Amino acid sequence: MDLHDLTRQLHISATSKIVMVVADGLGGLPNEPGGKTELEAARTPHLDDLAARGVLGASLPILPGISPGSGPGHLALFGYDPLQFVIGRGALEATGIGFELQDGDVAIRCNFCTLDADGNISDRRAGRIATEASAPLAMRLRDVQIPGVEIFVEPVREHRFVVVLRAAGGLAGNVRDTDPQATGVPPLDPVADDQASQRTAEIAAEFLRQAKLLLADQPKANFHTMRGFAEKPQLPSYLEVYGLRAAAIAVYPMYKGLARLVGMDIVGDAQTLDDQIDLLQSSWKNYDFFFLHFKYTDSTGEDGNFPAKVERIEQLDAVMPRIQALNPEVLIVTGDHSTPAYLKSHSWHPVPTLLASHCCRPDPETQFAESACIRGGLGHFEAKYLMSLALANAGRLGKFGA
Amino acid sequence: MDLHDLTRQLHISATSKIVMVVADGLGGLPNEPGGKTELEAARTPHLDDLAARGVLGASLPILPGISPGSGPGHLALFGYDPLQFVIGRGALEATGIGFELQDGDVAIRCNFCTLDADGNISDRRAGRIATEASAPLAMRLRDVQIPGVEIFVEPVREHRFVVVLRAAGGLAGNVRDTDPQATGVPPLDPVADDQASQRTAEIAAEFLRQAKLLLADQPKANFHTMRGFAEKPQLPSYLEVYGLRAAAIAVYPMYKGLARLVGMDIVGDAQTLDDQIDLLQSSWKNYDFFFLHFKYTDSTGEDGNFPAKVERIEQLDAVMPRIQALNPEVLIVTGDHSTPAYLKSHSWHPVPTLLASHCCRPDPETQFAESACIRGGLGHFEAKYLMSLALANAGRLGKFGA
Repeated sequence: MDLHDLTRQLHISATSKIVMVVADGLGGLPNEPGGKTELEAARTPHLDDLAARGVLGASLPILPGISPGSGPGHLALFGYDPLQFVIGRGALEATGIGFELQDGDVAIRCNFCTLDADGNISDRRAGRIATEASAPLAMRLRDVQIPGVEIFVEPVREHRFVVVLRAAGGLAGNVRDTDPQATGVPPLDPVADDQASQRTAEIAAEFLRQAKLLLADQPKANFHTMRGFAEKPQLPSYLEVYGLRAAAIAVYPMYKGLARLVGMDIVGDAQTLDDQIDLLQSSWKNYDFFFLHFKYTDSTGEDGNFPAKVERIEQLDAVMPRIQALNPEVLIVTGDHSTPAYLKSHSWHPVPTLLASHCCRPDPETQFAESACIRGGLGHFEAKYLMSLALANAGRLGKFGA
Repeated sequence: MDLHDLTRQLHISATSKIVMVVADGLGGLPNEPGGKTELEAARTPHLDDLAARGVLGASLPILPGISPGSGPGHLALFGYDPLQFVIGRGALEATGIGFELQDGDVAIRCNFCTLDADGNISDRRAGRIATEASAPLAMRLRDVQIPGVEIFVEPVREHRFVVVLRAAGGLAGNVRDTDPQATGVPPLDPVADDQASQRTAEIAAEFLRQAKLLLADQPKANFHTMRGFAEKPQLPSYLEVYGLRAAAIAVYPMYKGLARLVGMDIVGDAQTLDDQIDLLQSSWKNYDFFFLHFKYTDSTGEDGNFPAKVERIEQLDAVMPRIQALNPEVLIVTGDHSTPAYLKSHSWHPVPTLLASHCCRPDPETQFAESACIRGGLGHFEAKYLMSLALANAGRLGKFGA
């Protein structure tokens, strides 16, 4: 019996509201020995007040030592075991640019590359061609025509773009990469690893044949490889596993896309945190669960900009009263992973997590900070359990067994 | 390799004694913001003394957010993974009233219901008929005669009673509920979900046919439904998995029944906590492990009576010196789940747990309280691991691997 078997069996209806605020990459590190983390350095009176009334914990996104990408980090917060539900790379890339995959689609990450006169790869990334040059080339590939196949080509960034294949009856995605992961050798042909994916491999081969002609005039990006063939992941919905009508309020396409994969509605088109809170207010009556994503704690961490990350945390703190004014029965503040400015990257460190409800068991901790969270009443817990805690605190989970 | 594979392989014989005191529903919540829990409010000098000498922890009965019933809560404390060993509802109901199930028995929860003139259910609980009226009716059903089948009918409470079917060669319990979970429709027939349960379904159908005749004169309880068909659960015994001769000293039938399912002997017929301690003393030489169950921390919690729960905790504290006087090598005090008076129900909150032995590693905590237990040396742990900790501290578990 897994966690979703339990929540499916035990969830009960209620009128309570749950708000999960995800400050991307929230956890941090001191920039120097003996120093404070970004969260500890930030002035966060409202989050500290919530920490005093609520319960803290240290959330492990995946397993100790494992740094997650955005996909598995969010799946875990959404209660989907990130080691069981794996989103294929092509599907994640498509999701990240806001492409709405349909059942039966196959999404493929593509890299422009350079072929030499003998047809061998001389540069696997076409000299890391700039986005301004590569985007029009990706769009040029929209001229590829294959009977019976609907083809979408979407620029991403630099040498990267996405191809999505759609055909009546659906396609299967078990096809090998054409990138040989080496230079001085020719690209590989797309090879299906099962009978069901044979057609996809044939379509991909025809796409590559036409693409080579369309790109023949290019000095650098005169071909491309295909990687991470992936079908749309099959994730059970929030409504089915939790009985929750869920809304996602995010600025960036990746997080809207991840939320859509678990059946959340994408609410509005916020550009700022204030827009997001406005949308939270205006959609309050229509949903039981709200996922509110704040990107900039991650991007400042990735930039290695400690003071900017501190400022972003304080910006988030400042809107907490507006969220609390809505009186959600359960208010959670957490992150999908840590992004310490010191490391300039996602990391494996536990994520400070705060849960406030009328029936959480408060612990003695009074500051929202990494050092307090490791002593908190939620203990060190796997992020995938946050949703069952949210449901329980919202009075939305019945008893297991008599 | 699961936990029992390990304990089976590693347990060694010793003369040490383990006492596990289970204060049912021990964990609590403050009744008002900033307040203390029941355990924190109680004066518990003896438990605090043990806490100072021993090691504390926060026990998760099932998984974060999951509130257990008594069955899974106790199975976890006994070291049986509650998600792996699931006791069928009929078997738990029979266990709860002290019925000793045998291998091959099928136990069924029955509800008196009301049929209208068309044979449709007009009330699924026969107007929640009072126990005084329903018990004689259940006993009337003992007149049902089916050749080759031994039938037991036992009243439970209000509209509920239990039927146990026993036949040479044994019966299988994979039969669907006859309760349609709706009114205005007729009850369902008992349908077997496999060939082995075919005979059980036929016996159940004949029971229902005769029951309808026996109840025909009743205005409200003129029929009954059958639910939760279940065989006796097959649980390995304490002797086999731990090498322990185990005794259960409990007042209420449910806890005696659960202990019997894992092969414990039921010792005596205590009516009070003092009786229980007397029995602990008098049976000390005959057993290695003692499960001592204290009900009233749960029932006062269920009643929402905070001061009464505090008083019951203090009552338990007062007998600790008598238990300690027996010098058990390992003394554990815990609960099967939390029952905060604030919630008037079982809850998901971690359970304060204390383990004292000559070789536990004491932590700096000196009070038996939720706030101390979350910082204790046992950490936050799944309750199913408590038995391996008990065995280790009792010198009853060898080394894994060389």
